[in-house]
Amino acid sequence: MDQLQELRNRIEQVIQNLSVPSSPKDLYEPISYALSNGGKRMRPILVLIGCKIFNESVENALRPAIGMELFHNFSLIHDDIMDDAPIRRGKPTVHERWNSNVAILSGDAMMIQAYQQLVETRPDAVATIIRIFNQTAIEVCEGQQLDMDFEKRDDVSIDEYLNMIRLKTAVLLAACLKIGATIGGANEEQAQFLYDFGLNTGIAFQLQDDILDVYGESQKVGKQKGGDILLNKKTYLLLKALELTSDSGSVEQWLKSSATEGKVAAVTEIYNANQVRELAEKRMWEFYDIGVSSLEKVQGNAEWVKILLQFCNELMHREN
Amino acid sequence: MDQLQELRNRIEQVIQNLSVPSSPKDLYEPISYALSNGGKRMRPILVLIGCKIFNESVENALRPAIGMELFHNFSLIHDDIMDDAPIRRGKPTVHERWNSNVAILSGDAMMIQAYQQLVETRPDAVATIIRIFNQTAIEVCEGQQLDMDFEKRDDVSIDEYLNMIRLKTAVLLAACLKIGATIGGANEEQAQFLYDFGLNTGIAFQLQDDILDVYGESQKVGKQKGGDILLNKKTYLLLKALELTSDSGSVEQWLKSSATEGKVAAVTEIYNANQVRELAEKRMWEFYDIGVSSLEKVQGNAEWVKILLQFCNELMHREN
Repeated sequence: MDQLQELRNRIEQVIQNLSVPSSPKDLYEPISYALSNGGKRMRPILVLIGCKIFNESVENALRPAIGMELFHNFSLIHDDIMDDAPIRRGKPTVHERWNSNVAILSGDAMMIQAYQQLVETRPDAVATIIRIFNQTAIEVCEGQQLDMDFEKRDDVSIDEYLNMIRLKTAVLLAACLKIGATIGGANEEQAQFLYDFGLNTGIAFQLQDDILDVYGESQKVGKQKGGDILLNKKTYLLLKALELTSDSGSVEQWLKSSATEGKVAAVTEIYNANQVRELAEKRMWEFYDIGVSSLEKVQGNAEWVKILLQFCNELMHREN
Repeated sequence: MDQLQELRNRIEQVIQNLSVPSSPKDLYEPISYALSNGGKRMRPILVLIGCKIFNESVENALRPAIGMELFHNFSLIHDDIMDDAPIRRGKPTVHERWNSNVAILSGDAMMIQAYQQLVETRPDAVATIIRIFNQTAIEVCEGQQLDMDFEKRDDVSIDEYLNMIRLKTAVLLAACLKIGATIGGANEEQAQFLYDFGLNTGIAFQLQDDILDVYGESQKVGKQKGGDILLNKKTYLLLKALELTSDSGSVEQWLKSSATEGKVAAVTEIYNANQVRELAEKRMWEFYDIGVSSLEKVQGNAEWVKILLQFCNELMHREN
């Protein structure tokens, strides 16, 4: 997929050429650190593909694409403080490497830099783009708050969970496509079809993450298999198991217990006995299909629509 | 000054009518809490005056004015975490009343809400306003970082200090005027004159704060007299005293000592012996005069220029 690789190269090029000031050091070094830490650059790629579907040139979308990557990284820096996460992409998180104050303030600066990149596009598209982005950014905050709220609650429903992952993860992917499409010249209806595709596949990706945490080839990412189970994370799988096994209470027992020995195997066993994986995959593909049916309404460059579908298909079939 | 009171009333009205969502509770309650906690509303007032100088109507400036107040309050919430401040305007700070995570995330949401308000203006002004705001917001972060850096340094120069307060405090006041003027229809040169007025008077206000901390009528604000001295804050007064008394070293001794008994009186005595107050006031009025000479170049509604000058004059002559 050469065309996609070309977009990736351009994204890395723009990131390389970002002029992050050198001073004050503790404000800007963490930004370079976070940005250089790799990641799949999924969000900027989606912006550019969204643009490509409606326009030959991605020139006007490059800086906003980086804006979305900056925002994503800002949210990771602040989330990592809140979640007390020590490692991100194999390296110490910003608040671990520096401290919480540095992580708070450089995260703030990174969010502002996201806006600085977002306005570097067609002047007549700026207001629309900022509005889409504002709405999305506030929803991402809501998603993070709900995620933290759920940790303290015992009565989270599957619908609440799906709403949380919609806000925390899916809306940003959806907004990337919509912003790209808008810059490319799509009308609102067309841009919204791409948004709906991104939203539904985004939820599907997160369900896939939940499944891979238990059933993926964890050695490939260096993650601990069943990490979500050990942390009592209220994933789709866990909530489904709780729903199906309310009588026996066996999952509840593991949730209440502080024992970790054998926990992953035992909870996975309960998942298996109740076909929780299959149920999660079914739900995942339902979301994916809704997304695809929205994508089918998009009237743009068919080749790039195909590339988008292929890109998302690969994400759906990943093994870790 | 009835006209100013009318602007104040409209600002309070818009703040009252802001539809802050009710859920998730821990995300939005702190925003309402911070906003309802009063404050002088200086920033939105400056936006509206800036607009009034060039336009009869402030309709298009009302929401951006609230945006500037939201941004200011966001920065207070995050600064208070970093400075570990327990009290703000006589009430517990957000991270004290809730916790740091809540303060981080609701602060983030508040910054995004600032952008949401800023775009609610004349469509053709949105891009310009967002650009002014982005530049300002990042400078405010730089100012906060420098302020924290200075705490750990022994060699802060007066020029560095003036640059820090320019970034941390003055640019936001300046940007309020410039954004208001831009919405009101001012051309860039005219808007910049107002910016320069705000910038220089903003620095003067901060020097005034430094002076009032030691020489103000502290009982009126319920602050501890000489609070900056007790905290070894590197204010203009302290840096000037260090510069003037480098031989005797008497200020250094107090800086290194953990003793607080008699500290305020002793350091004030050193200030008095070296005319530090007079020197600070001289510098303050120099900045103020530069600001006023920039204001004199503004060609707009003379009555509102006068109101602006009077408003700032009152701030310069406050006693606490």
